[in-house]
Amino acid sequence: MTDKKTESLQEATPELGRRRFFNTTALVGLAGLAACTEKPASGGAPAASAPAAGSHGAANASHLKPGELDTYYGLWSGGHTGDMRVLGLPSGRELLRIPCFVPDALVGWGHTNESKKIMGTKADGNLRYSVGDTHHTHASYKDGNYDGRYAWINDKINSRIARIRLDYFVCDKITQLPNVQGFHGIFPDKRDPVDPAINYTTRVFCGGEFSIPLPNAGTDDAKQYHSLFSCVDAETMELRWQVMIDGNCDLVATSYDGKLAATNQYNTEMGAKYEDMMSAERDACVFFNIARIEEAVKAGKFKTIGSSKVPVVDGTRAANGDAKSALTAYVSVPKNPHGVNASPDQKYFICAGKLSPTATVIELSKVLEWFDGKLEKLDGAIAAEVELGLGPLHTAFDGRGNAYTTLFLDSQVVKWNVDKAIAFHKGDKNAKYVVDRIDVHYQPGHINASQSETVAADGKYLAVGCKFSKDRFLPVGPLHAENEQLIDISGEKMVLMADHPVRGEPHDFIIFKRELLKPKQVYNLDDFPLAVKDPKESGVTRNGKKVTVKMTSQAPAFSLREFKVKKGDEVTLILTNLDKVEDLTHGFAIPGHNVNFIVNPQETASVTFTAGDPGVYWCYCTHFCHALHLEMRTRMIVEA
Amino acid sequence: MTDKKTESLQEATPELGRRRFFNTTALVGLAGLAACTEKPASGGAPAASAPAAGSHGAANASHLKPGELDTYYGLWSGGHTGDMRVLGLPSGRELLRIPCFVPDALVGWGHTNESKKIMGTKADGNLRYSVGDTHHTHASYKDGNYDGRYAWINDKINSRIARIRLDYFVCDKITQLPNVQGFHGIFPDKRDPVDPAINYTTRVFCGGEFSIPLPNAGTDDAKQYHSLFSCVDAETMELRWQVMIDGNCDLVATSYDGKLAATNQYNTEMGAKYEDMMSAERDACVFFNIARIEEAVKAGKFKTIGSSKVPVVDGTRAANGDAKSALTAYVSVPKNPHGVNASPDQKYFICAGKLSPTATVIELSKVLEWFDGKLEKLDGAIAAEVELGLGPLHTAFDGRGNAYTTLFLDSQVVKWNVDKAIAFHKGDKNAKYVVDRIDVHYQPGHINASQSETVAADGKYLAVGCKFSKDRFLPVGPLHAENEQLIDISGEKMVLMADHPVRGEPHDFIIFKRELLKPKQVYNLDDFPLAVKDPKESGVTRNGKKVTVKMTSQAPAFSLREFKVKKGDEVTLILTNLDKVEDLTHGFAIPGHNVNFIVNPQETASVTFTAGDPGVYWCYCTHFCHALHLEMRTRMIVEA
Repeated sequence: MTDKKTESLQEATPELGRRRFFNTTALVGLAGLAACTEKPASGGAPAASAPAAGSHGAANASHLKPGELDTYYGLWSGGHTGDMRVLGLPSGRELLRIPCFVPDALVGWGHTNESKKIMGTKADGNLRYSVGDTHHTHASYKDGNYDGRYAWINDKINSRIARIRLDYFVCDKITQLPNVQGFHGIFPDKRDPVDPAINYTTRVFCGGEFSIPLPNAGTDDAKQYHSLFSCVDAETMELRWQVMIDGNCDLVATSYDGKLAATNQYNTEMGAKYEDMMSAERDACVFFNIARIEEAVKAGKFKTIGSSKVPVVDGTRAANGDAKSALTAYVSVPKNPHGVNASPDQKYFICAGKLSPTATVIELSKVLEWFDGKLEKLDGAIAAEVELGLGPLHTAFDGRGNAYTTLFLDSQVVKWNVDKAIAFHKGDKNAKYVVDRIDVHYQPGHINASQSETVAADGKYLAVGCKFSKDRFLPVGPLHAENEQLIDISGEKMVLMADHPVRGEPHDFIIFKRELLKPKQVYNLDDFPLAVKDPKESGVTRNGKKVTVKMTSQAPAFSLREFKVKKGDEVTLILTNLDKVEDLTHGFAIPGHNVNFIVNPQETASVTFTAGDPGVYWCYCTHFCHALHLEMRTRMIVEA
Repeated sequence: MTDKKTESLQEATPELGRRRFFNTTALVGLAGLAACTEKPASGGAPAASAPAAGSHGAANASHLKPGELDTYYGLWSGGHTGDMRVLGLPSGRELLRIPCFVPDALVGWGHTNESKKIMGTKADGNLRYSVGDTHHTHASYKDGNYDGRYAWINDKINSRIARIRLDYFVCDKITQLPNVQGFHGIFPDKRDPVDPAINYTTRVFCGGEFSIPLPNAGTDDAKQYHSLFSCVDAETMELRWQVMIDGNCDLVATSYDGKLAATNQYNTEMGAKYEDMMSAERDACVFFNIARIEEAVKAGKFKTIGSSKVPVVDGTRAANGDAKSALTAYVSVPKNPHGVNASPDQKYFICAGKLSPTATVIELSKVLEWFDGKLEKLDGAIAAEVELGLGPLHTAFDGRGNAYTTLFLDSQVVKWNVDKAIAFHKGDKNAKYVVDRIDVHYQPGHINASQSETVAADGKYLAVGCKFSKDRFLPVGPLHAENEQLIDISGEKMVLMADHPVRGEPHDFIIFKRELLKPKQVYNLDDFPLAVKDPKESGVTRNGKKVTVKMTSQAPAFSLREFKVKKGDEVTLILTNLDKVEDLTHGFAIPGHNVNFIVNPQETASVTFTAGDPGVYWCYCTHFCHALHLEMRTRMIVEA
């Protein structure tokens, strides 16, 4: 299972030693590391060790016959579009975008009163934010597998976390994390650390990446900055507690027993410039002892910051030197680590080195031993630290003991065996831990496999988010699509199945069996307090300058043929879609008034706007519904 | 080439006669015509006359091998997302979304000063509109084929037309049509009607769908409403002229000789309610004599409406009874026609009946004869009017004499031969004009074939925009994806190749050979007046409360490590991306200030915002660029 390249890597030949170039003296060369200049387009030639697509029986499995359904769902962060993408796998087809942090002109997200309330508004009623940057998405667990209740996604720009209901595929709550800047990693817990009856997700952990003054008072002395690791209640979406740590938080992982969460940490140097951020040879993976943190909060051992009421416990190194009372544990890992992922055998967290060509395997039972005072040196929890290639970022698993790590600079995915890596690290230099390598196109970031971060990892499909597509798609001007590649990992060798272009900049994602979700397709009228349940309730009511218009839709007509308001009125229009048939969505647009939104079957939505200049305004259905869809209109007549 | 079903259709059996149910007495049944209830999901079973996918050699051609490039571009309207989608065909992969009418949080469209200027702002500097509803997209022509200069797209809600530069794939101009509501159809001309040297697009015609009072004074007497057909200059994007007509304008087509444009027209009844709009048995396809209209404008035979300075000529029936001086000609077509499409042999416009099961073939040379006084009755230009099936909407062509029309209610595409239809219409009842039918899934609207609306129609691929996907994809809650289906039309029989889900609600699209575009992938610094061409120009300059921050980006750093402003400052930040490498885009986000945008290689963009509360704000690169991307930041320090 090894070839010459693999062997030379494992033997740490001089050629590989040379590759350890990410040290402080190499700074002058960094400009040359821009991904595009580093590796010229290879024209898609597969790596020597990877068979060409098509030479493997499963390589065409991504092409479903028309009408054939996908077997997996994928939940993907949408990146700057501030939404969550829902994909079908193996086809890679995008089935839905769920708006969260950024307005969406199709749904009317950020336009309807209901969605504005979820997104958050300023005193003047306008949205607080209309940009977002979603990175990580994860779903709720039960017994170590997804339970189809919720998914969460972060907004890095404004430190918000959104929850998605996985029955209706809509965002129902957004929470802003206080005193956090650059909220990055996110992971739900998998069970309670103490109560065995709580075998499902009740907390979501959030890593704050950017260290800032606490409270943020504008000092430019970065040595005084800290960042916070936050715990959000999965049901109420309110903050439970925060932990102040040294350095920052990057990605987040949680243990299957509920006892531990961890975040990788670059910039333990507390620098404000990138050369400072990478000056130390080792950074850390910070572990959080959840039960102890919650005991400390219960015991009142916390402070609050600024106007926030959230309890903040002290997780700095200085305050946690005594293992037996420590809330946190800083396990040393090579410089500027990036991803941290929990293996499906529940034993390890694996940290990818980013600026070190290594992965570090941390044994969770040992970390717990340290917290119990039974392990003298914390770094004794490091089960392995092995070289994989240049720029390791994230790791996925197949449930058969293998890990798959993206190598950003090498533009490869490396498949490696965790047990053999541990054996190699312990001294067995004959342990060939690298199983296979495959070229990807190009500069891969996130990676995930079907069911990878669950106890049901099934080792079927691997998806890779490549940051650069270069020559893989037709040119479309300066803004290139990124490239999501799908790889068949059912066999010993990885096989590239398909390339899918995607708008920048998606990040993390999860892939799971379709049986785990039970979507609902028609709303319940009673779920909407404002519902206009009978067309007879339609009409216009006035209260001074405030006017309420109630209306229903049933293809191909709105219940009001016209309605009259006066210039300057504050009009609230409530629309209930009385059509009950699945897929029969209507839209409602008003020319010149910046109004457009949809109502799905049995849904109610409302908008509030100011009536403009006198005139006739044809409000029309914007969502095809019927042969007479074009004729489905009502007139808003604005009088002077 | 015909089967029993086809024959029975052509013979207009009683069963077909019964299908002519769209008359005024059938109104009571209309509610039951909602598409979803009309036709239960068939489970994807192909029509009897359509072979199953896979039984044809080309049926898998939509699955490209990884790294293989598409051979066609598709430009697709994005619908409510207010953008243009760029697809690769035959893979159906979405390569880019070009924001036009709606802000886009990835690009920073509607956030940067440059894009806000194109989109249009109110007096307070905020965007005038943040919703849109794009329907139709077409590209500029030369010698009857696309020339790769421009594409145009409409916004129906606010009657705007956007132009896309097809070198950089960006929107560079948006024009709002005065006195138009429900701007729907759009089509560029293909050459000048008079000057033979102008063998390329110089005008874009825009149909106004909703009739309104002119000027819009708020009367509710629909009999006094009119709509306008507008001509926009392709280069300046300013209005050249408008024509006031009876009824409304639906889709638009233009002749290859530049002499004629036409718009289908439903609601010649001038009704305000859908039952009025469909009361007459026949509506019209309105032809515009471009040369005569421009002569009339030149001769001062126009009025203006309200505050608009645009010349408006009178194109109503009453004013155009004399063929020899008429500006317009109302050819009669069956009730509520929808699509009108020009055949690639340059001879015909084909109008689809929508509420009539027919297509009407109008011979352009006869229309010109009528304008010349050589054809007594205008309807003598009707070369054929044949039955196709229920709910005909749009027509595409293969360049081999065949037309492909979507049947919305039948959920089919019908392939029919135009010459045979004409023969049948002339009395040859043995002319079997229907060649093939294929079931599509479900309720098809727009249709187009590769190069269909050019002289180079090549009859290779046919794409169909199906309004309902029902059971074709995994369920994702109440909002279903629509379904774009790709059909192989290279043979006698149509073969379904693939289903692609798409967010609602895309409409029209064009498909053309990739050789016709010459995209540019790196900008020219000199194209941006504000460009910061050297990092040494970086810095902060103050003019009272107005502060300008100049900065450059070169992976992995911004040229300023930090910059200081004061609370309440009006900050204009100018960022030039000095990276020259294709695909090396940077982003720039500021927490808490609602700022995020990208700069592509050698691009300059600027944003203006008000500095918030004192504190440290980590501005960071949001677009992956380098191994040290996460470390690519600058601090905005806001002082009291």
